[in-house]
This record gives sequence, structure tokens and C-alpha cells, in this order.
Amino acid sequence: MKKFRRSGRLVDLTNYLINNPHQLIPLTYFAERYDSAKSSISEDLGIIKEMFESQETGLLVTVAGASGGVKYIPTASVDEIEATLLDLCTKLKDPNRVLPGGYLYMMDIIGNPKLMNDIGRYFATLFANKKVDVIMTMATKGIPLAYAVASYMNVPVCIVRHEHRITEGSLVSINYVSGSTKRIQTMSLAKRSLQEGSNVLIIDDFMKAGGTIKGMINLVDEFQSNVVGTGVLVEADHVDERLVDKYISMTRLSEVNTKDKLITVELGNFFENLKQYREEK
Amino acid sequence: MKKFRRSGRLVDLTNYLINNPHQLIPLTYFAERYDSAKSSISEDLGIIKEMFESQETGLLVTVAGASGGVKYIPTASVDEIEATLLDLCTKLKDPNRVLPGGYLYMMDIIGNPKLMNDIGRYFATLFANKKVDVIMTMATKGIPLAYAVASYMNVPVCIVRHEHRITEGSLVSINYVSGSTKRIQTMSLAKRSLQEGSNVLIIDDFMKAGGTIKGMINLVDEFQSNVVGTGVLVEADHVDERLVDKYISMTRLSEVNTKDKLITVELGNFFENLKQYREEK
Repeated sequence: MKKFRRSGRLVDLTNYLINNPHQLIPLTYFAERYDSAKSSISEDLGIIKEMFESQETGLLVTVAGASGGVKYIPTASVDEIEATLLDLCTKLKDPNRVLPGGYLYMMDIIGNPKLMNDIGRYFATLFANKKVDVIMTMATKGIPLAYAVASYMNVPVCIVRHEHRITEGSLVSINYVSGSTKRIQTMSLAKRSLQEGSNVLIIDDFMKAGGTIKGMINLVDEFQSNVVGTGVLVEADHVDERLVDKYISMTRLSEVNTKDKLITVELGNFFENLKQYREEK
Repeated sequence: MKKFRRSGRLVDLTNYLINNPHQLIPLTYFAERYDSAKSSISEDLGIIKEMFESQETGLLVTVAGASGGVKYIPTASVDEIEATLLDLCTKLKDPNRVLPGGYLYMMDIIGNPKLMNDIGRYFATLFANKKVDVIMTMATKGIPLAYAVASYMNVPVCIVRHEHRITEGSLVSINYVSGSTKRIQTMSLAKRSLQEGSNVLIIDDFMKAGGTIKGMINLVDEFQSNVVGTGVLVEADHVDERLVDKYISMTRLSEVNTKDKLITVELGNFFENLKQYREEK
């Protein structure tokens, strides 16, 4: 490969780091990629680090020593998160969303990859320092957000389903009680899609009483694994009894008045948790 | 915002462009963002363009005039695509994938966000010049790849389902015949998730005889919309009669010998199409 000037290296390095988050890359990799001295690469990374941190795009963590290198950790600024989430609240309040039975139409939100990616990056920001091995979600609507989080955290996704599928080999199934309808349901996960002893981050689109999330927590238990955290896009606040007490929500739906088509939505607890997280650092 | 030096601008511009593909951004936006002259921004973009093109990371298209600006179109090099797809073929040949009934376990592949993103970028490369308004896929396993393509093309996703869901409002349902099992099945799409007159790119994980894809094509018809193309991760070649004749496949599964656990996989037709596409340009 031809020798690159600093300006070219900065462009390609930035591109490379963004596409390879949460991955320790040895400086020698870049030194060879650009046929440049390690000291030049270090200076390049210094410029990128400063810019990423001033724009709150992400952190560059440098690990010294023989097995060292540089790792890019995507983040987002409080201002960006607040603006996106307030805008999401406004979108959720649109009276046209109200469906018979008090359900909300959400496919325009879940069907928006840019929004899912942004919110995925916010969850990745909050959970950046936790040891996460895999993202777990429930088919179907949790999948887009789960993949967005997983992309930014560089971990795989495992998908829990209601139905049994013959195309995934042996399954582990559990029964659980849906918190809001009190019906007994089944959920299953392919045996080989989650290794024993994994640290699991649960991501879903919607949580009412939390029966589905509770089911996933029990399922993680069946796999002798460990739940690191739970994140949802929308929590419904109008429930008597919550089955899950520790979770992070982006937005909170406190009322759906089907008669007047009035939807009350506010910011979820993500914000408080983000502030607390930033203070702890 | 403070004034930025070229090196800082290059880092942030690269980051911004990568996160906003297929979107025309006026130069004045960047001039204000960095408090810099438009001529300096033009020079920055020239450096990025040169680097992106030499590394085949993407194209920067500049549109002149009052409503002009710059647009980033993600691409991938033939070498990268070939390496990824050959590696995928090797993975698919792993005899441990064989499940009873000749099915293949694929969740480790579909559950890998980095791989889905890469393959999504390859589809986005091939379809970059087509007018695509929305990506359509079938729940559940097509979703990850569909979102990856949609992210790189900056368009929404609509998800077709087998079951009826009460949480999505009115649906359009069609019956279709599964090509391999000859069973009659139903698929539905929420009425408001696809606008009339849309240009639809269909993306799915697996195509055997093509019954599901054919069903989606008919569904697009019901919405007075237009299929721009069809892309699948794996096509199964061991079928008598193919119901769909125009499609792009990344890999081709020609035999699954359950007795000897022998899987025969080769590159799909993506490669030929890519070459043809490059020659046409």
C-alpha cells in the first residue's frame, strides 16, 4: 500500500475506528496499513481522540504494552440524547397512533434505522463499561434496537421467540405469565445461541408489566448466565404491578386515552441513569 | 462553536458523512458547523473523497447549485466482498450446522451484527443507483440484514409477518403457496407501513423455491408499489422449480447431505451482478 499523508490517514483511521467499535486494535496494524511509523499513528490518534471527545462522538482508549492498542467506544452527548428523546416523545404523542384496545402503532419508529441506531448508541453509551457478551431480545419488534446496540458494542445477538422453530435445532423453552393479560405463554431460545456463563444485556421495544422481560431473565438463568442490564424503548407506566424492578427506559407512556386519542409520554429513566453514570466516572 | 483546524474537521466530517449516508448535505451546514469558509470545506471534502475512493470505502458525490451539497454513498471493494463471502461459504460448510430435516443452523451468522452490516453494505453498493424508498423483509430472520441494508441506504424498513398482530392496525393479507412444502400460508403487512407508489427492495435471509419472496412481490403489488430488486443471503439451489427468476444471492447452497453431514456452498450470483454493474458505470 502506498504511503499516506496525515490528512488521508485521519480520514481512513476515523472510518476504521467507527466501523470497529469496542475492539482493541494494535498500533502495528495501522502502522502497516499506512506504511507509517508508530509515532505518527500515535499522533494521528491523539488528534482523533481530541476531536471525538470535544464532539462527544466517542472515547479512544489506549492500552499500553505488547498486547496493547487503541479501542474506540462510541458515545453520545447529553444534548444529542435529550434532543432525540424529546423528539421521540413528540412523535409518540401523535393521536393517529392510537389503535383499538389502546395499542399504539409504532412501526414507523421501529422501522426507522437511523433512529434505532441513535438509540442503540445511547444504550451502548450507558452500558459501555459493563462486561456484555451478548444482547438478548424478543422477536419481532425488539430485534432492530437489539442489533443497533449490539453493533455499537461489538457483540452478537440472540433472539428469543414465542413459537417453536424447527430450523434452529434443540431449544430451551420456558413458560411465563404475561403480566398484563395473565395468560400463560411459552418462549424459547435455541440451545446453541447462548453459551453458559454469558453476560447478557436484554433489549426490547416495549415493556408493560414486564412479563416478557421477566421471562427472558428466567431464560438467562436456565442457561446459567447472568443478566447485566435491561433496556427498553418504551415503558408503559399505567400498570398496577411491575414484575421487573431494574430496567432502563428511554420513554415512559403514562396514559393512552382511546376516547379522546390523547397519549401522555415523557422521558424514561435513562436520563437519570446517564447522569448518575457520568457522576460515578 | 470554536474554529476547527483542518485535521479536526477531517475527523468530524468523516464521522458525520459515515453516519449520514445517501443524504444530500449542503456545504453551508458544514461551513456553519466548523465556522469555516465554504472553500475550506470543499478542500476537506476533496481529501475525503480521494481517500474514500482509493480505499473503496465509498463515493462522495457533489451536487452543484443552490440546492446542492455533498452526498456519501457507502461502497465496498471487490476484494473485501470476495474475502467476506468466501469466509461465509466456509462457515456455512461447517457440518455442525446440519439439523434434522436438512435444515441449517444459521443463528450464529444472522446473530453477528458486524457480518450483517458488511453484507448490508454490499447490497447497498449494488443497489446504490436504484431509486429505493423502502426495504421490505419477512419476520424474523430477514430483519437483521434488512436493517443493515436500510441503514446504509438511509431508507425505512417494513416487516411482513406470518401471524396477524393486533398492535399494528389494519393489515393487508395475502395467501401464498410455499414453493417447497406446497402449503398455503398467509402473510400480512400493516396498511400504513407502506405508502402507495413506493419503490421496494426486498431483502431476506433464505430463499428455497421462492414462495415467500413471490408472496412479498404480490404484496407489493397490492400496495400499488414497485419491486426494484430482491436480495437474499443464501439461496438453496436444490429445487426443481424456482418461483422467482430475478434475484441477487450472496451464497448458493447446492447440497445438504444429512447422512454424511456434507454441505456444499458456493458464491451466489451477487458477484456476477457486481461486475456487470461496474462495467455499466
